[in-house]
Formats: sequence, structure tokens, C-alpha cells
Amino acid sequence: MAAMPGQMMQMPLLISSLIRHAARHSGDTEIVSRRVEGDIHRYTYRDAELRCRKLAQALARLGCTPGDRVGTLAWNGYRHFEIYYGASGSQLVCHTINPRLFPEQIAWIATDAADRVLCFDLSFLPLVEQLLPALPTVRHFVLMTDRSHMPAATALPNLSCYEDLIDAEDGRYSWPVFDENTASSLCYTSGTTGHPKGALYSHRSSVLHAYGAALPDAMGCSASDVILPVVPMFHVNAWGLPYSAPMVGAKLVFPGPFLDGKSLHELFEQEQVTFSAGVPTVWLGVINHLKCAGLKMSSLKRTVIGGAACPPAMRQTLENDYGVEVIHAWGMTELSPLGTLSKLGASHRHLPAEQRQHLLEKQGRAIFGIDLAIVGDDGQALPWDGKASGDLLVRGSWVIDRYFGDAGCPLRELDGEMWFPTGDVATIDTDGFMQITDRSKDVIKSGGEWISSIELENIAMAHPAVLEAAVIACRHPKWDERPLLVVVRKPGAELDRERMLAFYAGKIAKWQIPDDVIFVDEIPHTATGKMLKMKLRQQFAGHTLPDA
Amino acid sequence: MAAMPGQMMQMPLLISSLIRHAARHSGDTEIVSRRVEGDIHRYTYRDAELRCRKLAQALARLGCTPGDRVGTLAWNGYRHFEIYYGASGSQLVCHTINPRLFPEQIAWIATDAADRVLCFDLSFLPLVEQLLPALPTVRHFVLMTDRSHMPAATALPNLSCYEDLIDAEDGRYSWPVFDENTASSLCYTSGTTGHPKGALYSHRSSVLHAYGAALPDAMGCSASDVILPVVPMFHVNAWGLPYSAPMVGAKLVFPGPFLDGKSLHELFEQEQVTFSAGVPTVWLGVINHLKCAGLKMSSLKRTVIGGAACPPAMRQTLENDYGVEVIHAWGMTELSPLGTLSKLGASHRHLPAEQRQHLLEKQGRAIFGIDLAIVGDDGQALPWDGKASGDLLVRGSWVIDRYFGDAGCPLRELDGEMWFPTGDVATIDTDGFMQITDRSKDVIKSGGEWISSIELENIAMAHPAVLEAAVIACRHPKWDERPLLVVVRKPGAELDRERMLAFYAGKIAKWQIPDDVIFVDEIPHTATGKMLKMKLRQQFAGHTLPDA
Repeated sequence: MAAMPGQMMQMPLLISSLIRHAARHSGDTEIVSRRVEGDIHRYTYRDAELRCRKLAQALARLGCTPGDRVGTLAWNGYRHFEIYYGASGSQLVCHTINPRLFPEQIAWIATDAADRVLCFDLSFLPLVEQLLPALPTVRHFVLMTDRSHMPAATALPNLSCYEDLIDAEDGRYSWPVFDENTASSLCYTSGTTGHPKGALYSHRSSVLHAYGAALPDAMGCSASDVILPVVPMFHVNAWGLPYSAPMVGAKLVFPGPFLDGKSLHELFEQEQVTFSAGVPTVWLGVINHLKCAGLKMSSLKRTVIGGAACPPAMRQTLENDYGVEVIHAWGMTELSPLGTLSKLGASHRHLPAEQRQHLLEKQGRAIFGIDLAIVGDDGQALPWDGKASGDLLVRGSWVIDRYFGDAGCPLRELDGEMWFPTGDVATIDTDGFMQITDRSKDVIKSGGEWISSIELENIAMAHPAVLEAAVIACRHPKWDERPLLVVVRKPGAELDRERMLAFYAGKIAKWQIPDDVIFVDEIPHTATGKMLKMKLRQQFAGHTLPDA
Repeated sequence: MAAMPGQMMQMPLLISSLIRHAARHSGDTEIVSRRVEGDIHRYTYRDAELRCRKLAQALARLGCTPGDRVGTLAWNGYRHFEIYYGASGSQLVCHTINPRLFPEQIAWIATDAADRVLCFDLSFLPLVEQLLPALPTVRHFVLMTDRSHMPAATALPNLSCYEDLIDAEDGRYSWPVFDENTASSLCYTSGTTGHPKGALYSHRSSVLHAYGAALPDAMGCSASDVILPVVPMFHVNAWGLPYSAPMVGAKLVFPGPFLDGKSLHELFEQEQVTFSAGVPTVWLGVINHLKCAGLKMSSLKRTVIGGAACPPAMRQTLENDYGVEVIHAWGMTELSPLGTLSKLGASHRHLPAEQRQHLLEKQGRAIFGIDLAIVGDDGQALPWDGKASGDLLVRGSWVIDRYFGDAGCPLRELDGEMWFPTGDVATIDTDGFMQITDRSKDVIKSGGEWISSIELENIAMAHPAVLEAAVIACRHPKWDERPLLVVVRKPGAELDRERMLAFYAGKIAKWQIPDDVIFVDEIPHTATGKMLKMKLRQQFAGHTLPDA
């Protein structure tokens, strides 16, 4: 209890208030989707909010009660958007699952989350049918389509048609008011060791993140924007854009599964998109298409690039050739995801162009709501001088406290406060600009997706001819990083590149298999016996991958 | 307790976190002040935060304990800024008092708030000395200056020198962490009846307001901005700018008491100000100076104008002649103060210029965090069609729940929710644009300051020759509105304009005295006997005031 409480209205920060605000105050504003079915669908925030209410009714009718998880395997589209609000708004947990994971991982995640309902796009029907035996917690399957696209026959029991569920409801539903610390959504991240871990966001954290993400120095969302999130809605809530756009009444454009350069450019132009966000890999596709077809961007003004470091050449091409401002961002699933963005301040206006570019290539400054620290090997805080490099810690209103379920509390103490260790190594300068310099955790970031090096090492170690194996990230022009396997053969054993790589088949998703194998006599170790990955990364920094 | 709680860090929204964020992440960014003493003072957010901590120590040393009110009578400057943070951050309540009020009102307000400490600028030393007998709750007086400007002798007991208080502390102070619903600051508003009433803001409401105010469609604050709040810090926290600027790391420029056009323009140019905010009256002064001296604005990009309707001609001059975007805003003390701002959406891009202007002249759309409703005489919600006009109600995260102390709860119920009646009459269109069309409460808004018509009527009614008196707002080119007194003389009584106006002397602040008197035979009434002010306003709409 406060010594002297303020006398202001008590309004919990709820996700339903975002869609309600958009429906009331920007009711005529459009949401446009390229459907999995191929055609274009358009309606308004007013229409969307009514359907979100009907979905909330339908989920209750399926037997969902507060706290139940509703899984999704879906592309960016209006039905997925409705599940974000219909599920979270009615006190259920919207659990977005990455369909690009290996099927066994998907089943493991859905079961770990104990998903009660699983909603999925048409594209994933064969996948879900295949997974059925491994999904014991799912009571209802919902195919996100209309009656005419429903399969004639299916192995799935209790398969509902999304549009039928909506049509059966009358929308006479008031968004419930409850504790803002209630769980709203769940997203798993591939960790360095063992199984993926879930980040369980709350209504409060999501709404505060939406405020922070919409600020001018973050994604700068406004009602004058037309926003196309290229980043998938199964990747940390599409970086919060499905929340920030209704908050400010921006028009939303969803690309569905069509993420190639040509499809995206068509949608940018047709809908006069002003802002987009995605990983570097997607932008490579867009730039290649523009170059080959000799096209321009007529409306796109700026884009946030994150998920992996944005190559300076990509920034220059987008800015100089296509007039698109590139905003470099850094975040993590555990941060909802936004942590820092790189935008110049008033004092940088008069710096030479080269120094401004140098600042913009850093990961940038923390949004209000996030605090940063860097610590040395002794766990003590390092100075912010742009030189000292240490483990990057974060704390803030939209940072996880612990992982979902029994997956543990990762926090560390510093100066009496608890911080989340990011696994990145960084410098911070006197003006707060953070730059990632290395990574302390063993992951490879390929096209915005994490690949666990430890998982790949464990598979290699299971081969009878392997004595020791290390997997490191190797630079790749398209995917930013790809895994490179370094192997020490057992004395006398025979093993070549092809047989080693073939050993991965069926054990892991195809895109996670290492691109190349290097055989060495010895892997360097620390005094305590840990592999010195840093040294390996330096040693093979110049290695060229087969298809690069 | 939530059915399923999210697993995110619990960080209360505290005002201290704003200045702490600025000191850590924008530590080199400047705060520049034109001092009451006449010179320019500059330092950084890093310096400011250290002094805020010292001030928190000093206030504790003066005996302040959580919940105590610290009053201020001060212009916009860095010391006032430090009190905002040093007091609120240490769980005291920062109580800004409008020094333009009549001395008796100031004393009444300070006593109603039970201010324990009163901090004031040099300009207000004679005023405070005069008020001393009427300030029984104040234990410590703090003159916001350095040793060299302290008076040789004073009637004030326990008069401290601000700089001495700061210098005596070491800054070894950690901002306390407490319930975010704790009161942070207090601001009185002149109501229609009786005494002024206090709005008691909380840390949570202030931080959420800071997020909302900084959004692109609100004040759009960023680190690339240089922000000069013309609106005084005693006017509803200078519309939240002292909170939103540190939130985003924007440079702040404080003009002190020098609010004439010449002084403001000099500061705009010297400090390369990009954004400012204030009432229309101040902009008149700036425009006149620019015109007379043949000057331009080299850096100012945009300004928020609120506190009274912005005349269309002023918008045109600022935009066409000086390249300054004008953003029309509406708010109230009871709303912290921001409610709506008028910015165009993507769908308005292709409207004819005239229609765009028409939209921009409205009060605009609600920021996320605020909801609007209009109701008819029967208390039922009216449609949002841009035509139906009714009493404007608001609710939201930064709207008061009740007034400070025993001044009551003004809320009204609508559809099961509690709303604050604004006293304004408005229309709202289908796209959420609100326009004030009339005022249901009896106040005159002169140069951004409220004048209570009922208070003026009561004084007139006390004159032995007056039978009935009504005070209405009359348009004024400089002050927007000025009070016009309409009087019915008692049968046979003699009374002229001069004697009537002379009767106000000493009873009310000089600037609150009506500008003119009209004698009539009869004042129109409703069936229940209430004066029909609306009719009077129509009747005298064309009246020209003596100095207008």
C-alpha cells in the first residue's frame, strides 16, 4: 500500500484494450491480408474487433478456461491476428509456434505448453496430421480457413473450421477486465542446451512493450503509417507490431506465406506501405528482385532490421538506391523482443557522415523500459566507454523473470538488482550506444532463426568415428551465419565430409544441418577443459562455405 | 491474483526511472536554462540526476517523510526540474502552484495541500513574504538560488538557500522502489464553483502519460529533438514534457520567466530548438516579433498548441510563413493533461487540402490510454457521426478518479463504466476525430488560464445595485477569451461600467477582472430558473471588448 496513493483511475493494461481502442478510435482503418488461399482480404479494425469477440466466444464454447493455451501454426494474416486478441483478450494464452522447426520439436513444444487448442493455416494440415500422435494435450484442432477449403477427409479428430466457429457466435461479448499481470502469450526460443524454453508474456509487459515499440526512436508507429510486418507472427509476436499498430491506428498489411522479394514488393506498392520490419535475409530477397527487375520503392520510408546484424552494404543499398531508412535493432525472445535501436540524437547532427554511419551500425540505445549493463568475468559492472567489452545483461518491464514451466530462472544479480544474461558480449559508449561484439552462448543465427551448436555437436559426437566436435558460426552472405562443424576423428577412424553430413539426415531439420565440415587434429580448450570456441571462430574466420 | 500469471520482471513505473534512464542512456545530453538571474545555465542529464539525488537527501534532512507535499512557485528552469524528480522520486509529492493566481488563492491552495516545504524562484520572494501569515502548514522555505543572491534580511523563518542544501549532500542515495500507485505530484485547477480543486497524479499515471505523450501522433518526442516547453511547469507539469524528454533522451531548453516573443525566438535559434508547446497567446507574441523584426525560424519544426482552441489564421501563419507544423491538442488538468491531438492518418493523405485543414482544426483523436464518449441530456451515449453533439466524457490511465482531499468524486456512470465529465460539449466522427463545439461549464479561458465565471458573478451580486449578473466568455484576439459581465440593475438603482469594474479591485487577481460590462433589462432563464448562458453568448457574440 502506498504511503499516499495517487487519485487516478485504475485501468489494467490489457491486450483487449488495444483492439478496442483501434475499433473505437480508428474504426475505418484497414487490415489487408494476402491469404494462404492466394487472394487478398481486407476489412477494418471495427470488423476485426467484432470477429475477435466472436472468437473469444467460440474458444469458450470449445471448453477453454482462463489460462488455457491456444497454439498457432500460422503465417501473418488477419485470422492469426484475431487469435492474438480473441485468445489473450479472453484470458487464454496465445501460443505461437514456429512451423519452420523440425516436426519433433514442434510436437515437443506444443506438449510442453500443454496446448489445448491448435489453430493452423491450410499449409500446415499435412504437418499437423503427421504430428497427431505426438500431440496428446490438444483437444481441438482448428483449421484457419472457410468451409469451402476444408478437407474432405482427415485423420484429425475434432477438426473445426475457423469460419464456422466465428459464424456460430453473435459477438455479444464484453472484454473481461482482470489482473494485468495475467499471462497473455507464449513463445519458445531455442536455447543453447537441451529443449527450447518458453517466454510467458503478460498483458502488462505486452502493452508496455507496445508503447515502447511505437516511440519515435523505436519503430515510430503512427496513424499515417501503413505497416507490413515481414517478420513472422510466430517470431516473438512479429516484434510487437500486431500490438503497436492498433495502439496508434496504423493500417496493417499481412503478407501471408509469400515472403519472396517479388510478392513483398507487389504488396508494398499496392498498399502503399510506409514501414516494414524483418531479418536481413528477407531484405536480400527484396533487393535482388528490385535490382533484377529494375524497380523502385514508391512509398516505403523506413524499415527496422534486426534478428541478426544488418550488413553495412545492405543499409547503403536500401538508403542510397531505394530511399528507405534502415533502423538497426537488437532484441531477443526473452525481451518481447525489443531492447535497443540505433537512431541518432540531436548532438550527432553535426558529426561527419562516417561517424554517423558508425553509430547507426551499432545496435543502438535502450528504449525506456529496458536497462542495460555489461559485466566482466568477475561479474562486476564494466565502464561505458565504448571500449570495455563484457557480458550483456538486461532488465526491464518486458524482460522475462524465468522460463515457462520448470525450465528455470536464468537471472543474475548485479548491484542488488536481478538481470537477465543475454548471451551476447557488447560494449556501450558514454552516450548509451550498445554494440554487440561477440556471443558468449553457443548459437548460430541463420536467417533470423537460432540453431543450437550444442545440439549439432551432440549429434556429431554420436557418430562412432568422432572423437570431439565443435560447431561454430561461419559468415554467410545470404543467411548471415551458417553452422560449420569442426571434427577431431578417433585415432585410426575413417570419416569424410559427405558421410558426416549424411549422418544428420532425419535427426534435425534440414536447414539446421551444418554447411561444411573441417577435420582438425585438435580443438583448443581452456584450463578447465571447455572448448575455446572463440579461438576456433578466429581460426576459421576466413573459411568459405560451399554455396556461399 | 491472475489465473495464470505471466513470468515477466516486476518493475514499478516510477518517475525516478525516467531521470535514471536519461542519466544512464543519454548521459551527455544537455539541459539548458535561462535563469531568473538572467544568465544561461547548462548541464547534462547525468549532472541533473546527481543533483536530484542530492535534493532528495536534502528534503529528507528537512524532515520530509513519504507523502509530504513540496510546493513550488517557479518558472521553467533546471532547479524546478530537479524538484520534479527529487521530490517525487523520494516518495514526496511535488505540488506546482500557479504564481499568476491571486495571492489569497495561492495561500488557500498551499494550505489545502498542507505543503510542508515551499520552494520558489527569486521573483516570488516578495510574494511569499507577503503570504507568510497565510501559510501555516509550511515549515521550510527554500529560495531557488545560490548564496550570492540570497536576501540580506527576510521576514521568512527557516529560509534555506537551494544551492546550499544541494552542496551539503553527497549524492550517495539510491532511488527507493515503491508502489507505482503512490502519489507523485499535485496540481490545482480552478473549477466552476467554489475553491480550486487538486488533481493528485500517481507515478504510474505520470509514466504512462509520458509514454503516450511521446508517441509519434502525440508530441512525437525523440533523441533528435531539442524541446523547449513554453507552457509553464506550473501548468499541469508543462504538459508532461519534463517527463517525456528524459524518457527519450531529448535535449531540454527552459526559458525561465522570459516568455516574450523576442526572448523565446532568441532561445529557439541559439539552442536550435526543434519542438515547442504552449497556449495560443504565447505564439501570438512570437509571431508578432518575427513579423516586426523580419525574422525566420531556422530549426523549429513543429509545435503543439493547446490550452485553448488554436485560431486557424495562427496555424496558417506558422505553417506557411515559418515552416512550423502546428499540432492541435486538447487536454485538462484532470487528464495529466493530454487527451487528444489532431494528426492525419494514412487514409487522409489523398483528401483535398481544405478537408485536411478541417480535420486538423478539430481537437483530434484520443491517444491510446484515453477513451472518449459523448452523451446526450438523458445520459445515454450519442453516435460518432461528426454531427451529434453532447457532453464529452473521458476515462483512462491518466484521468483522475476523484479530487484531492475532500473535494469529491466527479465521475459519472455510462454502460457500467465510470467516466470523468469534462465540461466540454463535442462531436466525434466515425474515424474518432473529436471537436469541441461548446462548453457546458461556466469558465472563461484567458491566455490558457481558467477564470471562473461563477466567482465573478458572485462578486458582482454582492454589489448593492446589482439584481442579477452573468459572466460569459467573449472572443479576444490576444487572450482567446476574456470575461464579459452582463448585469441587471436593481429597480431604481444607479450603476455604471466604471463603478462596477472598480468593485472587483482587491477581490480577485487583476487579470481576472471582466473586460467590459453590459447592462440589460433581463437575463434569459431555463424553465427551472437556470441562466441560459448559451443564449447570452449568442446574443453578444459580436461584442467588441474595449482593448480588443
